[in-house]
Amino acid sequence: MKEPQTDPAGIRVAVIGARGRMGSTVCKAVADAPDMALVAEIDQHDDLARTLRDSRADVAVDFSVPSATEANVMTAIDAGVHIVVGATGWDDDSLGRVAARLREAANGAGVLVAPNFSLSAVLTMTFAAKAARYFESVEIIELHHPAKVDAPSGTAKHTAAAIARARRDAGRGPSPDATESGFEARGAVVDGVHVHAVRLRGLVAHEEVLLGNPGEQLVIRQDSFERTSFMPGVLLGIRQIASRPGLTVGLEHFLDLA
Amino acid sequence: MKEPQTDPAGIRVAVIGARGRMGSTVCKAVADAPDMALVAEIDQHDDLARTLRDSRADVAVDFSVPSATEANVMTAIDAGVHIVVGATGWDDDSLGRVAARLREAANGAGVLVAPNFSLSAVLTMTFAAKAARYFESVEIIELHHPAKVDAPSGTAKHTAAAIARARRDAGRGPSPDATESGFEARGAVVDGVHVHAVRLRGLVAHEEVLLGNPGEQLVIRQDSFERTSFMPGVLLGIRQIASRPGLTVGLEHFLDLA
Amino acid sequence: MKEPQTDPAGIRVAVIGARGRMGSTVCKAVADAPDMALVAEIDQHDDLARTLRDSRADVAVDFSVPSATEANVMTAIDAGVHIVVGATGWDDDSLGRVAARLREAANGAGVLVAPNFSLSAVLTMTFAAKAARYFESVEIIELHHPAKVDAPSGTAKHTAAAIARARRDAGRGPSPDATESGFEARGAVVDGVHVHAVRLRGLVAHEEVLLGNPGEQLVIRQDSFERTSFMPGVLLGIRQIASRPGLTVGLEHFLDLA
Amino acid sequence: MKEPQTDPAGIRVAVIGARGRMGSTVCKAVADAPDMALVAEIDQHDDLARTLRDSRADVAVDFSVPSATEANVMTAIDAGVHIVVGATGWDDDSLGRVAARLREAANGAGVLVAPNFSLSAVLTMTFAAKAARYFESVEIIELHHPAKVDAPSGTAKHTAAAIARARRDAGRGPSPDATESGFEARGAVVDGVHVHAVRLRGLVAHEEVLLGNPGEQLVIRQDSFERTSFMPGVLLGIRQIASRPGLTVGLEHFLDLA
Repeated sequence: MKEPQTDPAGIRVAVIGARGRMGSTVCKAVADAPDMALVAEIDQHDDLARTLRDSRADVAVDFSVPSATEANVMTAIDAGVHIVVGATGWDDDSLGRVAARLREAANGAGVLVAPNFSLSAVLTMTFAAKAARYFESVEIIELHHPAKVDAPSGTAKHTAAAIARARRDAGRGPSPDATESGFEARGAVVDGVHVHAVRLRGLVAHEEVLLGNPGEQLVIRQDSFERTSFMPGVLLGIRQIASRPGLTVGLEHFLDLA
Repeated sequence: MKEPQTDPAGIRVAVIGARGRMGSTVCKAVADAPDMALVAEIDQHDDLARTLRDSRADVAVDFSVPSATEANVMTAIDAGVHIVVGATGWDDDSLGRVAARLREAANGAGVLVAPNFSLSAVLTMTFAAKAARYFESVEIIELHHPAKVDAPSGTAKHTAAAIARARRDAGRGPSPDATESGFEARGAVVDGVHVHAVRLRGLVAHEEVLLGNPGEQLVIRQDSFERTSFMPGVLLGIRQIASRPGLTVGLEHFLDLA
Repeated sequence: MKEPQTDPAGIRVAVIGARGRMGSTVCKAVADAPDMALVAEIDQHDDLARTLRDSRADVAVDFSVPSATEANVMTAIDAGVHIVVGATGWDDDSLGRVAARLREAANGAGVLVAPNFSLSAVLTMTFAAKAARYFESVEIIELHHPAKVDAPSGTAKHTAAAIARARRDAGRGPSPDATESGFEARGAVVDGVHVHAVRLRGLVAHEEVLLGNPGEQLVIRQDSFERTSFMPGVLLGIRQIASRPGLTVGLEHFLDLA
Repeated sequence: MKEPQTDPAGIRVAVIGARGRMGSTVCKAVADAPDMALVAEIDQHDDLARTLRDSRADVAVDFSVPSATEANVMTAIDAGVHIVVGATGWDDDSLGRVAARLREAANGAGVLVAPNFSLSAVLTMTFAAKAARYFESVEIIELHHPAKVDAPSGTAKHTAAAIARARRDAGRGPSPDATESGFEARGAVVDGVHVHAVRLRGLVAHEEVLLGNPGEQLVIRQDSFERTSFMPGVLLGIRQIASRPGLTVGLEHFLDLA
């Protein structure tokens, strides 16, 4: 294994899917980071294994099309290159295959698979789950631009599932609700947690978790105003992946929240 | 007709349903107002016509049970006493009968029927309707305590209807929405306007209207934290009713918003 | 005077300062509007009078440097071309000279001078001023990106002044405040209205007006997420200016809020 | 030491200052809790040591006047009774004396001293401090009723100090700010963190922490609508104090946030 942190030029980063919208934004952020060097901009026609080797990359970042992601991760593992992956849609089977390959390779490679790199979104989910056991009621409002096709958002469903799990573990029952009828608004009840979905011109991606006790309310809200909002999280992943061998799912595990 | 404003002791107010929760709060607010005198606390066993006459009331306030309200209003009209009514559930037939009686009486009596006396709620509805034609998107979130049985709230449905009417009059089409599925959350689509209904321990009654254009958002929100929040609106109604003969539906018509 | 609305190709618009940041955004918005034609993109080296005449413009839009604005307006008036002006920093003397020239010209030309074309910002100020007389307390929070040099923002000071005027006219005293010490935060007290100024990375331009009565709160908030947020207001100004001869200061006068 | 949890009637609770506003609310909450028994309502004229002994209390709760609190705590320690203390204004000397007495007694007694028992307030402070190192900017807005004399609030100053400490520990510099003048609003800069103080009729006690990165925002907000909002935190303290011998300062240490 290389030891990226001791390289005088900083962490050597290769970006896969460099011409895509996210990929090109990552390239710019890496190039601007004082402790990183952008050593390869890779697209689908390039030979990934060879480019990773030739560029002597420490860390690869993959925001390419989901269909190619698992193969890219396997190639990076075999090459002993850490990889930070932003694609969504990973199922347990895919993750299981990646974990197996990491065990076989046994070369210290780290793989971070995260559905969301927005620090505010990751912290909202994490804090909401921690707080949920201490409140009688909890509901979620997610707000997005009106071109979004699905409702509720994947992030909100993920948050609801984490909240439901935390409440179940603490023996906390469902939020009180006397409503007798009227369940036709955009959104859903996910694992017993109500998720409301707002679609509004001008908005990008926002999530609000409301927690209530008698006489008090806690609100945790995050706003993603533009795509660059993911960059601090991606850079944090690149910086920490070398010290986190094996498979990590979710950026929250790289945050120091103890 | 009497001329309440010239009375040295202020406006003489009789409260109907004085032992109910709202009624007793109104009694206290009237007693505390420097320009009013509480001249009668009336409950269901009293002879209303006689009490109004004996107490020489200028204005009656009715927050009693809905089933009795229309009869109370008729009695006040016949007695030449203005009346401020807070009951909900008035239909067009009832209002028509009241208007007819006012025409017959022709004594200058004023009747104010308002579903909501919260100034913040009335202004939210009024401003939202005025603004709605200038924005591509508009959605409503209403939030209440979890013991509420109906969803969405009557106030939110009323707001949605006013917004829909304003947009129709201005030739503004529906809010853009690409959602393909997922309409199972608490709330409803009222006259084409999405209304989301949150139920949370700790909350009382709150409404938020979100309006969006490319790159900008306008949010109008009101919070009713406790029952006393209706008092400024009730007192405003009592003060103005003498100068507003005939039937008025909605406190917004007593506000100077030009 | 021409009659722009009857032109089959729509309103003919000339943009002054077309190469600036705002100017180029206006050019794009006009070109995209189905009822307008972009007939001239003018910069500081062009002969304005001649270009307006040759392009047969109905309406000019000026987002150029403030030092040139008054002269541009005079040229437009003389040419019988309506003009929509976005520059800030107009004083009463400048406005007086423009009004005088309009009287002399007597050709039906309309001039709109607006410090802010964001519909959400204009409506926030207007609604806040209308509501202010009905609430005991009112305070303003404005939030901007951290590169902003002045505090509070011009828009917030303008809003505070409008609120103060409305309360004075209604005989409403100052907001209650028992604070004995501690006035060292970013912001100011403007005409007796507290204005808090937040500076935060990630934000653009936002304003929130809080109004409070016993037991209730009304919040009016606007968010400008990006420069395009001014375009709906600019297009509205272009569409209405022909029917508003003379000088108008403030986009709110073009909105139908009765 | 007793073992409260095994008592079939639940935890035996004695309330000191039982006739005060907070004390009487605590008495009611304890009486209503299914796993507790209210065994003594103590006021200033009672013999505390004797009452604690006679009532066989497991836990005492003290919301009495600050001047008496330290002596009450010492008495409880000597009696081997755990004590949950809600008074503010403890300094390091007082805390040092309590810690010393606990060491001398060596009887397993637990003392919880907390400036704030609102779960939403405690979680807001805790989460804000944890998140602060991951964001470029952070500012605080606290909002209270207009009868409050001090600004900013003690809770907000406490939050600012915790945030400043967390950022210093993580090597994070001050929030960016280009403001050149205008620092006359209600509030203060505490340990380099801007704290804005809003005073508004209708509000009770609210705190909002805003954290910003390029293109994103995280907002953590808490609302205390009424005094009962402290009860879940007080009950949580009573339930956990037996398993936390020694001195604990701050309810956050009783929350499971790992």
